Amino acid sequence: MLQNKKSFIAVIGGSQCSAKEAKLAEEVGRELARQGAILVCGGLGGVMEAACKGASSEGGITIGILPGDSHRAANPYVQVPIVTGLGYARNIVVVKSAQAIIAIGGSYGTLSEIGHALQNNIPVIGLNTWSLSRNGKQDSSIIPAENPTEAVTKALNLATNQ
Amino acid sequence: MLQNKKSFIAVIGGSQCSAKEAKLAEEVGRELARQGAILVCGGLGGVMEAACKGASSEGGITIGILPGDSHRAANPYVQVPIVTGLGYARNIVVVKSAQAIIAIGGSYGTLSEIGHALQNNIPVIGLNTWSLSRNGKQDSSIIPAENPTEAVTKALNLATNQ
Amino acid sequence: MLQNKKSFIAVIGGSQCSAKEAKLAEEVGRELARQGAILVCGGLGGVMEAACKGASSEGGITIGILPGDSHRAANPYVQVPIVTGLGYARNIVVVKSAQAIIAIGGSYGTLSEIGHALQNNIPVIGLNTWSLSRNGKQDSSIIPAENPTEAVTKALNLATNQ
Amino acid sequence: MLQNKKSFIAVIGGSQCSAKEAKLAEEVGRELARQGAILVCGGLGGVMEAACKGASSEGGITIGILPGDSHRAANPYVQVPIVTGLGYARNIVVVKSAQAIIAIGGSYGTLSEIGHALQNNIPVIGLNTWSLSRNGKQDSSIIPAENPTEAVTKALNLATNQ
Repeated sequence: MLQNKKSFIAVIGGSQCSAKEAKLAEEVGRELARQGAILVCGGLGGVMEAACKGASSEGGITIGILPGDSHRAANPYVQVPIVTGLGYARNIVVVKSAQAIIAIGGSYGTLSEIGHALQNNIPVIGLNTWSLSRNGKQDSSIIPAENPTEAVTKALNLATNQ
Repeated sequence: MLQNKKSFIAVIGGSQCSAKEAKLAEEVGRELARQGAILVCGGLGGVMEAACKGASSEGGITIGILPGDSHRAANPYVQVPIVTGLGYARNIVVVKSAQAIIAIGGSYGTLSEIGHALQNNIPVIGLNTWSLSRNGKQDSSIIPAENPTEAVTKALNLATNQ
Repeated sequence: MLQNKKSFIAVIGGSQCSAKEAKLAEEVGRELARQGAILVCGGLGGVMEAACKGASSEGGITIGILPGDSHRAANPYVQVPIVTGLGYARNIVVVKSAQAIIAIGGSYGTLSEIGHALQNNIPVIGLNTWSLSRNGKQDSSIIPAENPTEAVTKALNLATNQ
Repeated sequence: MLQNKKSFIAVIGGSQCSAKEAKLAEEVGRELARQGAILVCGGLGGVMEAACKGASSEGGITIGILPGDSHRAANPYVQVPIVTGLGYARNIVVVKSAQAIIAIGGSYGTLSEIGHALQNNIPVIGLNTWSLSRNGKQDSSIIPAENPTEAVTKALNLATNQ
């Protein structure tokens, strides 16, 4: 049986990604599993698949919140597929189901999720991702991390403070 | 680690329910867990809570797909809370995340879920629930079950055929 | 300019329908326009298209809340296409955007909309549509109408009382 | 009766805004109405209300796609309230219902809408809004405008090319 008090951490990023992003995501997934967190993601390929692969390799739990109509679209490392049929409106469900978010890389879907998370006061940790400014002034809401271990540590610290 | 090939069965019913409905739901939850299925529900009280309580008591996994903005609204037996913030549009996510559905009792939210399930060709098993007719002619899409064990057996048989 | 105080009435029914249902829907659309109501629907074919056609023929306003990703899927009589990309989760948006609902015919999507409407205390008027019972007892929440004019009159009376 | 071939342009921005942003939004609304476009927005206050006020003052049509459960939350200049009950998942419906988007100011909800729009290849024109970079490199997807008239002209040009 799963324990009630685990942290749910979302890993967000493109369904297509570079080899470097995939490596970061896989290591983030592994580290989340080692620290007992449950991985939430959008359930598809790219960053999502790499993170799920990493988490699974360490015995972690992976939840994939899918945009389409079939659980068959989930990557092979998703253990709990949630089938929304909502298209990319499911992005906000990924965000809200997590206590903190780790963003990897820079797709526009990821940007929408960062916006939804910050709007909901859910901490966002960034690894090689978007940086934001408005009216020429830097916005520092995305908390930078140097590497996967630091990203996971920051995410778990901020999650447990909620 | 969860296994990939488990069946996901939704139990739907009112967030308030009679003692009789709660007893049916709890026994459905227990039987789903005994047979290794994962329970999907809307995560709140009434039929949902009773089903989660039954599943938990037999070591089963429970997923609660919540309408509101906080995982704190989940009943205490939900192990995997999905926080949608979608209001009752989350009903369709409950339905689509399951391979078959067991409907208990007769709230209008349950009726909306039955409609969504039948529209998506997801089998619906009924225990003391709605019956439907159109233009005076009985519609037999809801498959009746006499008791919780029969409901679970029918749900799993139909789920594995998909 | 549209006036602020108009009633918004949804016409719901299958995207495929019988000639009889289409005739009923077209007359409902015409009567809604004559009485100055704005027609809300799901924007597709069948009952929705017939109702929009009727409303347009009398100079009425038609809103189509579409499930897919393009306004091009709207029937040719939709003047205000709302593009949700939500799939059939859009059904609840159709319902909530109306002050009363007229259900024609008996698709399962229509059944989901009836459930959502009754859950939200939005009056449902039925023309040749579903009838409901639970545990063998008739549920009389769907208000029957004998013909399109009666359906529109009942819908507008109930809408203005909200 | 509305004409079928009008452009639908979304104006997005915070539900609270500065006096300067309100002035920009109102002028954008006026200019959209003068050029015959239909204004789509999230239906609430701040930038949304100012844009609707401007459009209404020139006889334009305004659509407000609301997050909550009641049309009463709409600002007084919304003529067509769409009641989603979806919370901020309604942001993607605002975006998808438009052929181009004008972003004013810098709330996080606006950022989520910019992300959804760019993911869907819907042009985004920016007035005093976010600017984006990834991995230290400027992203130029948001098309800058110097003033409301330029923003509307660019939005309509890009909308008609779709």
